[in-house]
Amino acid sequence: MSETRSLRVALLGAGTVGAQVARLLLEHHDELAARAGVPIDLVGIAVRDVTATRSVNLPAELLTTDAETLIQGADIVVELMGGIEPAKSYILAAIGSGADVVTGNKALLAEHGAEIFAAAAQVGAEVYYEAAVAAAIPIIRPLRDSLAGDHVERILAIVNGSTNYILDRMDRFGDSMEDAQRVALELGYLEADPTLDVEGFDAAQKAAILAGLAFHTSVPAAAVHREGISAITLADVESAREAGFVIKLLAIAERITDEDGLEGVSARVHPALVRRDHPLATVYGGNNAVFVEAEAAGPLMFYGAGAGGVQTASAVLGDIVSIARRHIAGGVGVGESVAADLAVLPIGAAQTRYRISLDVEDRPGVLAELAGILADRGVSVETLRQTANGAVTADGLATEADGGTATLVIGTHTARDAALAAAVEALSASGAVASVRSVLRIEGA
Amino acid sequence: MSETRSLRVALLGAGTVGAQVARLLLEHHDELAARAGVPIDLVGIAVRDVTATRSVNLPAELLTTDAETLIQGADIVVELMGGIEPAKSYILAAIGSGADVVTGNKALLAEHGAEIFAAAAQVGAEVYYEAAVAAAIPIIRPLRDSLAGDHVERILAIVNGSTNYILDRMDRFGDSMEDAQRVALELGYLEADPTLDVEGFDAAQKAAILAGLAFHTSVPAAAVHREGISAITLADVESAREAGFVIKLLAIAERITDEDGLEGVSARVHPALVRRDHPLATVYGGNNAVFVEAEAAGPLMFYGAGAGGVQTASAVLGDIVSIARRHIAGGVGVGESVAADLAVLPIGAAQTRYRISLDVEDRPGVLAELAGILADRGVSVETLRQTANGAVTADGLATEADGGTATLVIGTHTARDAALAAAVEALSASGAVASVRSVLRIEGA
Repeated sequence: MSETRSLRVALLGAGTVGAQVARLLLEHHDELAARAGVPIDLVGIAVRDVTATRSVNLPAELLTTDAETLIQGADIVVELMGGIEPAKSYILAAIGSGADVVTGNKALLAEHGAEIFAAAAQVGAEVYYEAAVAAAIPIIRPLRDSLAGDHVERILAIVNGSTNYILDRMDRFGDSMEDAQRVALELGYLEADPTLDVEGFDAAQKAAILAGLAFHTSVPAAAVHREGISAITLADVESAREAGFVIKLLAIAERITDEDGLEGVSARVHPALVRRDHPLATVYGGNNAVFVEAEAAGPLMFYGAGAGGVQTASAVLGDIVSIARRHIAGGVGVGESVAADLAVLPIGAAQTRYRISLDVEDRPGVLAELAGILADRGVSVETLRQTANGAVTADGLATEADGGTATLVIGTHTARDAALAAAVEALSASGAVASVRSVLRIEGA
Repeated sequence: MSETRSLRVALLGAGTVGAQVARLLLEHHDELAARAGVPIDLVGIAVRDVTATRSVNLPAELLTTDAETLIQGADIVVELMGGIEPAKSYILAAIGSGADVVTGNKALLAEHGAEIFAAAAQVGAEVYYEAAVAAAIPIIRPLRDSLAGDHVERILAIVNGSTNYILDRMDRFGDSMEDAQRVALELGYLEADPTLDVEGFDAAQKAAILAGLAFHTSVPAAAVHREGISAITLADVESAREAGFVIKLLAIAERITDEDGLEGVSARVHPALVRRDHPLATVYGGNNAVFVEAEAAGPLMFYGAGAGGVQTASAVLGDIVSIARRHIAGGVGVGESVAADLAVLPIGAAQTRYRISLDVEDRPGVLAELAGILADRGVSVETLRQTANGAVTADGLATEADGGTATLVIGTHTARDAALAAAVEALSASGAVASVRSVLRIEGA
């Protein structure tokens, strides 16, 4: 089945990433041909407007608005348009016409991945998507191939550079959430509509993809529990730092067993306290990192740029060359393994630890009452720190009582999230508690 | 070309890694079959002595001393014996009989990789070797596939856990080199004969493999410049720390251009000063990390355990499942890309920076003389720090002259290694220089 003719690549989209892919395919044509063993020819670029101004000067004769026709003649269709439609229809058309597909479309894969992979498997086509998670960082191939014989136990990942940049500014420069978001917007780390990033939607799509790969299960993005960072305050960040933590927005995928003994997957995105000596704590700025714990391999971390046109283009090019080599080798696509087909369990089944900060009445009996509330829900206390509220004295200690309230910081042992959440609800309903200052999960400890 | 029968795996060697591979293949048989799409059956384990006691209890009926016969009936031959012979002959026999090969044998690949890959390419067999570099850390596949469309510019890697453990103990616990080696030996980080690790032979083999992959060139281990860590003293480590560095044994592969404009590969192993804020500085204990700088992807880092039976077995299992999937898909092996076929350039052509500590005469004119020596060889000075030798005063400054000598620490700008080495030689021959305390390269800045 060896073929020596050239491979025809159709590119859909010429935005930040697409334009760089086109440039690299053209500039490095001969070198890529030597590496792949076959010339890889860019035969056309489908765009909405052929006259638009672009970051990269692309040959006018390659531009077309007729994506359907372009797809029909292609061996490899590279979809970098983003969005659900028409990207999905184009990808299915490409698969239907016998082409292999490269895409960086995380939203599409998180929502319709199962359908697309099934269509590809039926005809033996490949769908590669290294660019969909963590830009240039190789993580899809390591999970799909390198760890194919291992048992992944847990993934803790920083996969949204915008929110990492914001939280890092708050931690390292003392910015408020508002200021950090403003700077992130000015520097291009954040879109004009920051919701997708700040509220964790983007990270949840990536969590779905990582969880599916790691646990050989189809995990839709809608099944991912999602909390964003908008409620995080500078006071939270500073309190975390004093206790030896940094706050990161984590995409988490874990193999867990629920209370009834059902084995399943927990996939969730939320801000979390990470110990300063954890490898993820050193992921600064807009960078991404995927920390994987596997039964045999132990802890692994993959680190690098989480965004950027040319960085993401690197991942796309790697997929194109890999597919080209498969064409030389012959054979059909292998398809995604969903052999385990585990249940996706609700957030309540996850096992985690909470750090709870409360304003409480500073009188005898309060501690016993609150400890009782926790114990009743099966939550045991690991650390407890009470500080009287009031003016700070010259030696830095807060000793002057302020209307008889104190701040109580409770670090719990590991428990089900449902029990921890119920305990927080009961605490906040207690007459002894004036207010709940913050509740954050501790991960990676 | 789809096949649905089972795949027969022959395992050569049942040492620390081999025994774990056997255990995982047997214990996870059904799960691996589901993931690969075909049952993967361990049909035999070739060992020297079937009666030997092993770390894992292996079924006696699988053990054999007849490797040749075992190989003949296998679809996949997994070579974990180590050493050059008979491992090489067995691998060539396996390829000759139509089997694919998985090996973790870095010494063999570094010395005879080109011959083995050529034999495999001729018959369309696969040779996978993720376990040969950095144990469980996926690095072969990311370099070969994920970065296949990018230009790798430089790899800085900590690939020898033993020496990293020793240097880390010196840095974090203030051990002498002798004490650190003793502890490493006691804890099993170091072999009874530490030469392979301490003198950089092991790292040089891995540097050869990484350089070959990254630059699509065949790089023999003998072409790798190699310096070990045995000359590193606690004083070096402490002096480095004061200046904001940590000393690491690095395996380096770089694409460089020599003075005549010849493009080539620099592959070298030596201790180097790494800035404390570089990601490699946080690689503690026996861990490994591979830091890759690519033109499009930017900086990437791959981090994890660098040794261990079960950790390394994870990489081997990943290779076995990948090969099994290829059997399902059909097609032939792609072979290694040596399309670039660059020259391997000598250490003198490398561009680096030196940090040179000298004991010098403390008299007028010395600085001018030494600066002249450097300038004559085209080496320019970036930082200079002179401290009078003598007792330290109460405020921590060394001010009392000690026989009129001073310590001079020179940090250079980037220059060819040949020029830097010549400058050091000329400095040490100067009458103004009492002794050369240490010379270390600065990397990753």
